[in-house]
Amino acid sequence: MQEKVKGKAGVNSSRERILNEAVRLFARKGFGSTGLRELAASAEVNLAMINYFFGSKKTLLKEILDHFFSGYLAVARIDLAGPDDLERKVERFVRGAAIYFAENRDSLLVTITELPRDDPEILSYKANWGRQLMDIIDQEICVPARKCDPDFPPARVVGPMLTSMLASRFLFFPVISKIETRTGEMDIAEYASHISGILLARIKQADRDC
Amino acid sequence: MQEKVKGKAGVNSSRERILNEAVRLFARKGFGSTGLRELAASAEVNLAMINYFFGSKKTLLKEILDHFFSGYLAVARIDLAGPDDLERKVERFVRGAAIYFAENRDSLLVTITELPRDDPEILSYKANWGRQLMDIIDQEICVPARKCDPDFPPARVVGPMLTSMLASRFLFFPVISKIETRTGEMDIAEYASHISGILLARIKQADRDC
Repeated sequence: MQEKVKGKAGVNSSRERILNEAVRLFARKGFGSTGLRELAASAEVNLAMINYFFGSKKTLLKEILDHFFSGYLAVARIDLAGPDDLERKVERFVRGAAIYFAENRDSLLVTITELPRDDPEILSYKANWGRQLMDIIDQEICVPARKCDPDFPPARVVGPMLTSMLASRFLFFPVISKIETRTGEMDIAEYASHISGILLARIKQADRDC
Repeated sequence: MQEKVKGKAGVNSSRERILNEAVRLFARKGFGSTGLRELAASAEVNLAMINYFFGSKKTLLKEILDHFFSGYLAVARIDLAGPDDLERKVERFVRGAAIYFAENRDSLLVTITELPRDDPEILSYKANWGRQLMDIIDQEICVPARKCDPDFPPARVVGPMLTSMLASRFLFFPVISKIETRTGEMDIAEYASHISGILLARIKQADRDC
């Protein structure tokens, strides 16, 4: 099943097709290696139409970042909310995020691999999304954990770290897939439980100091 | 201080300059967005010289991957070896790897952001390095931990995860640097101790099952 990036209201199918092909090509070849002519051919539109809907390749990238981060933040807001205890919430969030990453694999790869780039226009954009992510993680995970253990890592460590941990399966996919042909594939629920198991061990350690 | 990538024996300074500029440009702009003409201008050589030493942009990328992975594997081999207990070894390795990543930030970013790309020639190259990394981590961390706790995650989770966790600070740098101007910068030793603290909590949990 191919991943779909939903555009803004009033989309028509050409616009969506351009966006979907952009995500697919950027993930496989990289943002910089994908030409607009190639994208037009792949989306079965002409170059003028990409220009009409998006203006530039950067606008496409911003829309992909928007799509990925807004979905990821929604998962964080929903799964980390409510009266459950911290461990239960973290388990639910890690599982929800792992499923979201798997379903939006191409958008994840584009987002992660474009994160360290220097372009000033894209940079402040990413910083804004990143800050929102860290704020939720601070409020819902780090502040409660630090009540018991002042040495618990701050959100500017936990946010990027947790995101990268979860993304590692997809980043290292070429390597992992060669290994898993021998050992059998790991499903996403098992993967999520290994990742949350690691973070939960640290949270439980903080709990014991209470 | 600018990061230096050492080439093979018999290097001359033009060759090294091309390699160093390639790492710097690929990390900032991405592999695909960096043109050979731009690289030639930046390294103060002519295009024919890049061709003479490397043949293609892909050869440059392979040399950067070689440089990064061979150094990272050397850190793993040295820091995870010896008669110390597992917790002490992991602490030493995470600290050593964090320092290595910080000193080779540009090579790290090129390696991580090129990891998921589909190019078949580069793919088997990355898979070969990745497998060596997972073998060391399996032997030195996962096999001992699994003696006490059969649910301890396998190397194909721990290897990519630990690498990505450590890389997260550099991947999210644009975001983190905007936050740290308010809160003060975290040094690499403190960062490493947060990361190893999380993995060690999971290892200690396995130990308690012994």
